[in-house]
Amino acid sequence: MPILLNCDLGEKVHDNDALLMPFIDQANIACGLHASDPQTISHTIQLAIKHNVAIGAHPSYPDKANFGRVTMPLSQPALESVLHYQLAAFSQLCELNGTQLRYVKPHGALYNDMMKDHDIFTTLCHVIAQMFTDVSLMIQALPNMAPFIHIAKHYNISIISEAFADRNYQDNGLLVPRSHSYAMVNDSTQVKQNIANLLNTGHMTSTSGKTLPLSVKSLCVHGDNEHALAIVKQIRQQIDEYDRTS
Amino acid sequence: MPILLNCDLGEKVHDNDALLMPFIDQANIACGLHASDPQTISHTIQLAIKHNVAIGAHPSYPDKANFGRVTMPLSQPALESVLHYQLAAFSQLCELNGTQLRYVKPHGALYNDMMKDHDIFTTLCHVIAQMFTDVSLMIQALPNMAPFIHIAKHYNISIISEAFADRNYQDNGLLVPRSHSYAMVNDSTQVKQNIANLLNTGHMTSTSGKTLPLSVKSLCVHGDNEHALAIVKQIRQQIDEYDRTS
Amino acid sequence: MPILLNCDLGEKVHDNDALLMPFIDQANIACGLHASDPQTISHTIQLAIKHNVAIGAHPSYPDKANFGRVTMPLSQPALESVLHYQLAAFSQLCELNGTQLRYVKPHGALYNDMMKDHDIFTTLCHVIAQMFTDVSLMIQALPNMAPFIHIAKHYNISIISEAFADRNYQDNGLLVPRSHSYAMVNDSTQVKQNIANLLNTGHMTSTSGKTLPLSVKSLCVHGDNEHALAIVKQIRQQIDEYDRTS
Amino acid sequence: MPILLNCDLGEKVHDNDALLMPFIDQANIACGLHASDPQTISHTIQLAIKHNVAIGAHPSYPDKANFGRVTMPLSQPALESVLHYQLAAFSQLCELNGTQLRYVKPHGALYNDMMKDHDIFTTLCHVIAQMFTDVSLMIQALPNMAPFIHIAKHYNISIISEAFADRNYQDNGLLVPRSHSYAMVNDSTQVKQNIANLLNTGHMTSTSGKTLPLSVKSLCVHGDNEHALAIVKQIRQQIDEYDRTS
Repeated sequence: MPILLNCDLGEKVHDNDALLMPFIDQANIACGLHASDPQTISHTIQLAIKHNVAIGAHPSYPDKANFGRVTMPLSQPALESVLHYQLAAFSQLCELNGTQLRYVKPHGALYNDMMKDHDIFTTLCHVIAQMFTDVSLMIQALPNMAPFIHIAKHYNISIISEAFADRNYQDNGLLVPRSHSYAMVNDSTQVKQNIANLLNTGHMTSTSGKTLPLSVKSLCVHGDNEHALAIVKQIRQQIDEYDRTS
Repeated sequence: MPILLNCDLGEKVHDNDALLMPFIDQANIACGLHASDPQTISHTIQLAIKHNVAIGAHPSYPDKANFGRVTMPLSQPALESVLHYQLAAFSQLCELNGTQLRYVKPHGALYNDMMKDHDIFTTLCHVIAQMFTDVSLMIQALPNMAPFIHIAKHYNISIISEAFADRNYQDNGLLVPRSHSYAMVNDSTQVKQNIANLLNTGHMTSTSGKTLPLSVKSLCVHGDNEHALAIVKQIRQQIDEYDRTS
Repeated sequence: MPILLNCDLGEKVHDNDALLMPFIDQANIACGLHASDPQTISHTIQLAIKHNVAIGAHPSYPDKANFGRVTMPLSQPALESVLHYQLAAFSQLCELNGTQLRYVKPHGALYNDMMKDHDIFTTLCHVIAQMFTDVSLMIQALPNMAPFIHIAKHYNISIISEAFADRNYQDNGLLVPRSHSYAMVNDSTQVKQNIANLLNTGHMTSTSGKTLPLSVKSLCVHGDNEHALAIVKQIRQQIDEYDRTS
Repeated sequence: MPILLNCDLGEKVHDNDALLMPFIDQANIACGLHASDPQTISHTIQLAIKHNVAIGAHPSYPDKANFGRVTMPLSQPALESVLHYQLAAFSQLCELNGTQLRYVKPHGALYNDMMKDHDIFTTLCHVIAQMFTDVSLMIQALPNMAPFIHIAKHYNISIISEAFADRNYQDNGLLVPRSHSYAMVNDSTQVKQNIANLLNTGHMTSTSGKTLPLSVKSLCVHGDNEHALAIVKQIRQQIDEYDRTS
């Protein structure tokens, strides 16, 4: 099964969306509460349709002031309201444009909190199951995904697991936090090698050298500026080449 | 048929919502794009349920920076996206709380634009008809409502007409604009008299003395501060007394 | 010494500023972090100049999402940054318009926190003293203002004490919180009586009947809607009449 | 004279600021009206001080909803208010942290408008001259900078000219607009070559092959994500090497 490319779009911070769309498979589109507005969301959905890109909702904590990057200590009913609001609005805009929502990938602090707090992950599954049939949830691929799969299965939700080729990994499969100086893979040859490893052997290597077997369906790429866009194109080429030859 | 009281709520600018709710019949609740957030919307819906108040969506131009008070020159598809987004999000929060949306009353500049521009009024009717059955549209009562009724009927939408007891009226039935020094009725005896006229004879009087027959189903009141709250209570009393004795 | 009228303005939520300005003495103008923008601030300053109204900065927690109504747990250096930012920006706009800042009145949660937490009050005095000479600080009049006066004197800051004629008072001189059903004075005759008491005898009466001697230099009024505006005019008349006859 | 590296920081959209700061010479720090808040600005100023990076104000149109990316048709007095507000607030935070503002680089649509509209450029010079002595203005290097230099000299303002190594240039020296498919230089070898050309011969080459002599004092780099950060480090190395050997 090929590895897909997913990318955050529709955030109004940069304007590369139209340039990026041809190179990706899955668009995580902002839902209006960490960034964006209905007109931009609708426009980004149309762009995804045009390039045959799968449409994902990218909901967040309601916090434009911090771009959804800070944890909000919401009660469970409050978090449910936040998710129902965004997913209903977003899927309605999909419907208005004659398409449909395929998956949900939380944004920023909500994504991190979901990976650390099973109650938040459960609330996400619960809300998706209440509102939709056949909408998946995108989360980070870990060596042991059993606890997540277990909860998701209870709600009949499919998981899309994703990896990051440009981030260094800890032995437990989590990313080296951004606050560390070696959080990022700065060498593009290494990024290429990481992708080759994922494609050929299905693993990443932690910074201590430990082999991390990861079942990865999608790779997260960033297109926020010119350099990033160039690298997305290179990754697209590398993956397409692998798919052709394998 | 009694005249109901409607009031804008859930805007997070003042915190009188819990105090006002017992005195009104219809709550126009912000949808998150001129003010508010999903948690506050959900909380305000719960407050309305508790006090048996009919729930209306109060959508706006997506413009928190101007509190929805400035006209945005949106294309029709953009306006449709703006309305679909808010009404879907809002009605989902109604459903989450076990109730349903009863009517739509646009906010601020969108309200004014709807009364002046039949294309915008038509888009509102069109979107409501696409999304709901049995959701009404609240607009300003005018001596001649035929054009509005005609369009609304085409979309099978009921109209709720509202009046303003504390605003002075022009001969054509429109309000004296706020920029004029005599826009407001400053005398509480006069406000009381205006309501008595509406209740007893179904008319308002323009500033030039012209009788304006208005078919009014609801009266818009404001509860933004202590004085306003006190006056809402007096109006409630006046209307209840009329209902009892008539 | 006459009692002045102060009012919050420039918040873009209502548009009564031009109508209110002729009736007040002191304008508390939003500084852009709970509401407003530089153009509106500048415009409101010009309006105040035109009507010979003293200009006050109305700084807040940086939280447009909650209109500055929620306490933010800022460190002291963070709070200092927040105050320096707003007061520098605001006083520069005063200077640009050929006038100057006369006093500071914190907004919303910051006002409440200043009255309850001497560290926050001290930070306010410290920042004002660092940045200006001859800028006062407006706070709530209490029966015992000694602790506030003591700190302010240390920083050589004058205090402007204000009262609220439409709020009920507790025995300790603090307001009955808004969450209580009897927070507000709903009877306009009672509001008038409260003002008469302040003017004639310099006291308010608590809800339990206790006499609260208050040294009041200013009365806070609200003009958010038509009713409120009407009442501001009545209060203006009542105070002017007292000044003429006393 | 060496070419410096400048970068936009303090925008709260990504969190690479601490990682980027060691590799750049000039930090263009958001002023709170397209992004950020006083606490973040102050923190970013402290980070710049720590790494001995020159501090620039990065003011914008007051439009967080669009991240300052859309032209606002402001009157000249309104634009002056917008600039006075941001520059006063920002320079006060510099002073609070014991440092001072060294230059101004407008953000987004305001930057583009300044390069196209001499009235806006003049307003910028006028405001800087009113408020500061010895604060420069950073603009785009063009083959013919005479009109800009002429106006700036009138106000006694120094110009810092900057280039973009990752953007393709038109024959007239302006950038190929982002809407074009060949707006960006996607090949990192080409980026390296562009920088080598600027360093060695002081020119860029347009897409048609025309040699563009540019007098460049600074190079704009982006650090929004991991890839970009890696490239900033490579550019830093390339420039340092050139400085050592030349």
